Amino acid sequence: MFKKAIIIGTGLIGGSLGLAMKKKKLARTIVGFSRHLENARLAKKMGAIDCIGKNLGIVKDADLIILATPVKSIIEISSRIKDKINKNCIVIDVGSTKQAIVARLDPIIPNFVGCHPLAGSEKRGASNLGNDIFKDSICILTPTPLTNLKTLNKIRVFWQKLGAKVVLVTPEKHDRALAFTSHLPHAIAFALISSIPDNFLSLSSKGLKDVARISGSDSELWVQIFLSNKQKLLTAINTFQKKISALKLALENNNTKLLTGIIKKANKQREKLG
Amino acid sequence: MFKKAIIIGTGLIGGSLGLAMKKKKLARTIVGFSRHLENARLAKKMGAIDCIGKNLGIVKDADLIILATPVKSIIEISSRIKDKINKNCIVIDVGSTKQAIVARLDPIIPNFVGCHPLAGSEKRGASNLGNDIFKDSICILTPTPLTNLKTLNKIRVFWQKLGAKVVLVTPEKHDRALAFTSHLPHAIAFALISSIPDNFLSLSSKGLKDVARISGSDSELWVQIFLSNKQKLLTAINTFQKKISALKLALENNNTKLLTGIIKKANKQREKLG
Repeated sequence: MFKKAIIIGTGLIGGSLGLAMKKKKLARTIVGFSRHLENARLAKKMGAIDCIGKNLGIVKDADLIILATPVKSIIEISSRIKDKINKNCIVIDVGSTKQAIVARLDPIIPNFVGCHPLAGSEKRGASNLGNDIFKDSICILTPTPLTNLKTLNKIRVFWQKLGAKVVLVTPEKHDRALAFTSHLPHAIAFALISSIPDNFLSLSSKGLKDVARISGSDSELWVQIFLSNKQKLLTAINTFQKKISALKLALENNNTKLLTGIIKKANKQREKLG
Repeated sequence: MFKKAIIIGTGLIGGSLGLAMKKKKLARTIVGFSRHLENARLAKKMGAIDCIGKNLGIVKDADLIILATPVKSIIEISSRIKDKINKNCIVIDVGSTKQAIVARLDPIIPNFVGCHPLAGSEKRGASNLGNDIFKDSICILTPTPLTNLKTLNKIRVFWQKLGAKVVLVTPEKHDRALAFTSHLPHAIAFALISSIPDNFLSLSSKGLKDVARISGSDSELWVQIFLSNKQKLLTAINTFQKKISALKLALENNNTKLLTGIIKKANKQREKLG
């Protein structure tokens, strides 16, 4: 499908993409680039990339570039590579927020498609790679009126070959939805785990462990995600704060009927989640 | 270990206890009693109980009674059986809050020990039974100065034989800890899932599913748990609300340093959880 693919950022998503692309034979050569040489070496050792690029000059004869660094670096790197790349080269990113990235990359890179594979985890780094993390996952593509339709189609097929179910939404809707379905749960998990007195942690069951799993997520990644989706995340937090306040009020008033209604409504919503 | 055990409430915990006791041969006969005859029938069919009791008169020649109904019913049933039971009969409950239950049962039942096996799930009813849900789980016992030490020791061994790690704390500390480690996560999960607009639910990944799993928990059970631990849960919710407000403020102020500190602290706390 591609002759020479460059993966910039060989962490969990970038490295796993390399592995999965190798497995499905989607690129003849994969070159990795990472500011953490150790990470790139590990990715190479695990077979996720064929070789390690020394600098961003490697992008010049690539036909696919995958930007898999934290959100802020994706924007920085794009301006450093835009004049180096071949005009037919396709560039995709896998950042967790899309509006800011797409707004910056869309006008400067002819064949750009914003992507967000919902396949991450709280773990980070090349040591946690997996070649099938995209199988049966959802990958959101965020085309705009500037998107080349042939490129969009090729990238859609690319993710489908990796086993992902592709969904197309606007960058704005992506960020509004993910503020609720991903960024809010992370904010809540960080706040929850920090609320629990140390000496109570041993008296906990699977419920807390499940809720708290994502509170182990990386601070550098998540500060950038939160800040790059600030307004929409604030809206989501406000909505949640109203719900928890309503539950608290019902509890203060011993309002059995209202509490039952709140929980039954949550049960129904949970069912819709599948 | 016991000749005739009665399980009152043959739902997930009661029924699974029956199965596990059978497997480990801890009682010669197990009689089940449930206000939902269907549940008792299913428990019998699955081998969790030997026979179904028609009324609470069955308790008179038992040497172990397990109260496994929702919290409020445990208190109600205890006053209905207290004059019927043999004076050597041991009574335990498996309710999710302990202060209210222990305060009521301790003075009226000579051989009572409050128990809370942390082995439930968001599922309910006899169809979800498992004979090994107690293996490697934590079981909290809440003895008081009124607790018979011989009885306490026997019940400790009982849970250990089922594979549980037994922890002893006061009913007050149990409820304070569980307010943070179980009841707060449930309150948050109910509020979170209800905050998410319907049309965004399909754009979610494993993170949300994990956080939201317990939002499928039963309303009858959980309203009773919340109300029976009202003050301590309110304290826990207040603590959490302060944490989420602090995170929101840091975000509003684009305070990268503070946000990083909040997430790094959460990461550390998450590690302690194991």
